[in-house]
Amino acid sequence: MLYKTNNPHGGDIYDTNIILDFSVNSNPLGTPESVLDGIRATLEQVRQYPDPYCRQLVQAVGEMEKVNNEQIICSNGAAELIYSYCEVIRPKRAVELAPTFSEYALALKRFDCVPQRYMLTQQNNFEVDDGFLSCLEQTKPEVIFLCNPNNPTGRVIAPSLLEKILCICKDENIRLFVDECFLDLSDGGESMKKYLNDYKGLFILKAFTKSYSMAGIRLGYGLTSDSSLLCKMGNTVQPWNVSLLAQAAGVIASKEKNFLHEAKRVIGQERLWLESELKKLGFWVCPSDANFLLFYGKEDLDIKLMENGIKIRNCSNYLGLKPGWFRIAVRLHKENEKLADAIKSICER
Amino acid sequence: MLYKTNNPHGGDIYDTNIILDFSVNSNPLGTPESVLDGIRATLEQVRQYPDPYCRQLVQAVGEMEKVNNEQIICSNGAAELIYSYCEVIRPKRAVELAPTFSEYALALKRFDCVPQRYMLTQQNNFEVDDGFLSCLEQTKPEVIFLCNPNNPTGRVIAPSLLEKILCICKDENIRLFVDECFLDLSDGGESMKKYLNDYKGLFILKAFTKSYSMAGIRLGYGLTSDSSLLCKMGNTVQPWNVSLLAQAAGVIASKEKNFLHEAKRVIGQERLWLESELKKLGFWVCPSDANFLLFYGKEDLDIKLMENGIKIRNCSNYLGLKPGWFRIAVRLHKENEKLADAIKSICER
Repeated sequence: MLYKTNNPHGGDIYDTNIILDFSVNSNPLGTPESVLDGIRATLEQVRQYPDPYCRQLVQAVGEMEKVNNEQIICSNGAAELIYSYCEVIRPKRAVELAPTFSEYALALKRFDCVPQRYMLTQQNNFEVDDGFLSCLEQTKPEVIFLCNPNNPTGRVIAPSLLEKILCICKDENIRLFVDECFLDLSDGGESMKKYLNDYKGLFILKAFTKSYSMAGIRLGYGLTSDSSLLCKMGNTVQPWNVSLLAQAAGVIASKEKNFLHEAKRVIGQERLWLESELKKLGFWVCPSDANFLLFYGKEDLDIKLMENGIKIRNCSNYLGLKPGWFRIAVRLHKENEKLADAIKSICER
Repeated sequence: MLYKTNNPHGGDIYDTNIILDFSVNSNPLGTPESVLDGIRATLEQVRQYPDPYCRQLVQAVGEMEKVNNEQIICSNGAAELIYSYCEVIRPKRAVELAPTFSEYALALKRFDCVPQRYMLTQQNNFEVDDGFLSCLEQTKPEVIFLCNPNNPTGRVIAPSLLEKILCICKDENIRLFVDECFLDLSDGGESMKKYLNDYKGLFILKAFTKSYSMAGIRLGYGLTSDSSLLCKMGNTVQPWNVSLLAQAAGVIASKEKNFLHEAKRVIGQERLWLESELKKLGFWVCPSDANFLLFYGKEDLDIKLMENGIKIRNCSNYLGLKPGWFRIAVRLHKENEKLADAIKSICER
């Protein structure tokens, strides 16, 4: 398989025999049954091209997010929008956190931009703090990439800090790209949606992928009031980028409100439990608000767990982290127990 | 819906009440039942990310096409590969036919290249002839884009001419991109697959979309022995560009050999019938080898047909054509009869 370099992300469970995948941060409740039913009902139409304008889906997302339809762009997974955003903006100077999701820097690199990084530290629990504001003063970026909650740390950014960042962006005419793909599964964070009408330079990235556990279908969307940007981004992607089945799935998922509520309840409980289990083993665990946990453990833990068919995310390839850092998704209790037991028995060996 | 400019293609049946869509050239037999079953069976796995390397699908395509797995790249529809090919090659000088499928020029335009066009003419039945060879002498392109059979004309390119073109490409170090997306539904054409090992500069584009009538799922692939090109193209697309369901559908479709055979039989018969009906009405019909027909009719024919819920492809936006040119898919007999009846009654008004 020559045609892709090594995939730097979790979720590639196809090369070995994986029984439990903790490397992907999807909703632990799985895909809503209604979504699967919706796809089944749409199957007979797959001979047709998808709606190139995603009309029904845009309408449904607009109702769910309570934003104008004109502020929405849909995509073949959220990753596609990171690339098309960078293709349109082509910034010379950008700032991002470190560690953070690697696709922003990869997309920027394609357009010859190496972002400045604001280094988060373990001593500071990987929190994004006011130091970030001084970093902006120094770097004078054209675009800021934030991930809220941040991946892989699981920390949400304080709403008050976000507001300060937004003020600077408005004053200095800096574009602000905020990835909120995990926000609907997190506690304590606040969406920047409320500023959409206030600042055209704001772009918010979201995805059905994680929230509704449908990573295999691919469906993301972006929100902004910069209609010229949306138009340009729409023209960087191919005409039928969002499949018919993904559109149908999204329309149905958007009506599933209790599903996210229930998921957050389970995640909150299980995150606490997993955190305390890892701490009992002497691991340092980053205080997380999200549906995943970053911790510092034994260097070969992932390899040993793979022997038990359990996959976790080795985070040594994140800028700012090193071997020994791992990320695990928060799953259902029985699954989390299996992981905790497996880690325990590895540590006791 | 601000975010995409007007879709120049057929198949957008979502804005009005369409009963019969002749604007999309899919296999008239529809999606194989086995493919739909395969998607149903895969639905429970959609919480997982797709295999970023499409391992099973690549294996299946390799067996179907009888090419090495290392010569295959899979994609979210064939259109994605046109864009990633142009992004990697970024040619300064390119040649294509006119009229032809518009996405080559659109993809080239994104990388600041306006292709030279070899104009096909009605007098010559839109045939690609030896004049094309002189055109190559004059334009000295870096890349040639061919569509075989050509869309929207339906003409296959003579295998002997293709061989001559290939010879020039090898001598002059010109890349040759051949879109064979409709070849499996056509008569008389020959795939250039057999030259893959012979010339690294050859790239062949194919799709499940048309052959297995699964446009809503999005699945294309490319073939070349230029492994460095494949690697670069793989890195221009996002990590999980081919959905889990599309991969499953492709694996199953690849085993469906009789399906294409039966489709070609139906298409051959029905193309003849439709052609003779159109000629009876006094329309000029391009002799087609494919599953669609280009003809010159009444200027407002498409608008009048839409009043009957029938959509055909207005071809006036193809370079080299003008108002009055239309393309229709060859469908099943009952559907073709409905179209012919509707056209007749419009002409008799």
